[in-house]
Amino acid sequence: MDNLMYALDLLGVAVFATSGALKASQKQMDLFGFVLLATVTGIGGGTLRDLLLGIRPVFWVAQVEYLGICAALAVVVFFVAHRLRSRQNWLVWADAVGLATFCIVGSQVALTVGTPVAVAVLMGVMTATFGGVIRDVLCGEIPLILHREVYATAAALGALVYVAVLSATSSETLSTALAFVVALTARGAGIAFKLSLPSYKKKN
Amino acid sequence: MDNLMYALDLLGVAVFATSGALKASQKQMDLFGFVLLATVTGIGGGTLRDLLLGIRPVFWVAQVEYLGICAALAVVVFFVAHRLRSRQNWLVWADAVGLATFCIVGSQVALTVGTPVAVAVLMGVMTATFGGVIRDVLCGEIPLILHREVYATAAALGALVYVAVLSATSSETLSTALAFVVALTARGAGIAFKLSLPSYKKKN
Amino acid sequence: MDNLMYALDLLGVAVFATSGALKASQKQMDLFGFVLLATVTGIGGGTLRDLLLGIRPVFWVAQVEYLGICAALAVVVFFVAHRLRSRQNWLVWADAVGLATFCIVGSQVALTVGTPVAVAVLMGVMTATFGGVIRDVLCGEIPLILHREVYATAAALGALVYVAVLSATSSETLSTALAFVVALTARGAGIAFKLSLPSYKKKN
Repeated sequence: MDNLMYALDLLGVAVFATSGALKASQKQMDLFGFVLLATVTGIGGGTLRDLLLGIRPVFWVAQVEYLGICAALAVVVFFVAHRLRSRQNWLVWADAVGLATFCIVGSQVALTVGTPVAVAVLMGVMTATFGGVIRDVLCGEIPLILHREVYATAAALGALVYVAVLSATSSETLSTALAFVVALTARGAGIAFKLSLPSYKKKN
Repeated sequence: MDNLMYALDLLGVAVFATSGALKASQKQMDLFGFVLLATVTGIGGGTLRDLLLGIRPVFWVAQVEYLGICAALAVVVFFVAHRLRSRQNWLVWADAVGLATFCIVGSQVALTVGTPVAVAVLMGVMTATFGGVIRDVLCGEIPLILHREVYATAAALGALVYVAVLSATSSETLSTALAFVVALTARGAGIAFKLSLPSYKKKN
Repeated sequence: MDNLMYALDLLGVAVFATSGALKASQKQMDLFGFVLLATVTGIGGGTLRDLLLGIRPVFWVAQVEYLGICAALAVVVFFVAHRLRSRQNWLVWADAVGLATFCIVGSQVALTVGTPVAVAVLMGVMTATFGGVIRDVLCGEIPLILHREVYATAAALGALVYVAVLSATSSETLSTALAFVVALTARGAGIAFKLSLPSYKKKN
């Protein structure tokens, strides 16, 4: 299970890094811009989580492979982005896998250092979404997740299921598997049916 | 005094969270956007303070009621914002109470961990203003406090008075009371008389 | 060498703080805006570095002179910006000195706490560039370094040379001197010849 989570975690970083690099291509940045955006998008959520929880140094200082993945993907995308962009479809789905992984990893890390469950759920959501928030802010856009889409909600559902099942069964395997399925299904439904939360409407 | 400060602190968080949620209603975000903006605005300043001072984990990881207040107010505002917006007047004044509280709490926390007084004053200002800065940046706007208004200045005055009176008298009660009155009066004067610092003008 | 690095470090902070204050004058902010932008630009990079490395509290909490320099320069620029702006030329070159210093300081600090070399290089780049990133984000602009200019690249070269020469020779003096010359030359060439990295072009 640990190995599977590690593999999914790397996959999540890779997918988010790719989405950051694709954003850089939209903005016609230079190679450094690609590397920077890919890196902050890939590791930004987990970094904020570690900072807030007081885990130091943050995870990628000890595990350099995370930085390597982000930088390598940025370079690849820099040269092949014109191809990837016509295949954004599979990226959206891979991104859903990243989301489902990160909301579990984030909750896991929080519980490991002994936070209350409400904080663990928040850390799950934050790990899964905050990289994208930084990406959008750096590009001068209002973060996507603040607008309508079943995205953060899917992460929250995954984190909730993970925390709830774990405290009920103490089974790391079961809680991880269930949470992964729930988050992926919720996000997948959002993609497939274009679901979104109702947004605030002015009443006159 | 401790109980009073705690009550005011919660009030400050509540008021700032409400202002974040109101901003979300202006931008017509979804419910998640309301919760996120309310939370970062309510606890953002204190979070940055704790990070910079090396207090770990940050305050709301141990005291979950802060997150609860932010989330609850976001939901309330989502459903009643059309009413609140016609009553922004009392919000501005409640916000002034939050400002006056947070500049004291920020300085207090800094002195507790033994920082120099200049840093304590800065932490007071930061605690009182940074939540709003994050709120505005996430909404794609230049932070309000960078423009003209007696806001950060009121927080700076409050923090200065707190630190000065405390070092002169060693009385927590007296320094807190005086600082609160000064910060609230300065901010109140700014609101009532529409005072602002002079801004830079191009000279040709 | 330590004294020289300390002096250059202060110079770097001063130069970056000045660039933040000049930005505030462009945006016609008030005096508080000048102080805030000068401070985040001057110390933002080193602050993020310390946070990520788990150094607590961050450097300027113990060394208040850094805050003093930023605030003082903000006030000076507030009153003389109309003069400085016609002399931006020397500022660009002084900024290059700051860049060359900060990429070394950042790598040094990272190695001191035992990070892998890849992380040390990243910390060098981050220390040298992140203050400017925050400055631009607060002003509602896409960070300059994400666009085309030999800037972050110069910082990366300097950090690489520092780390490489240090591990080859163990000479702090030699590695610092070489890294400084390389970073300054790279940035200088970028300024003088208007060099920039190739940016991504859409292929149709």
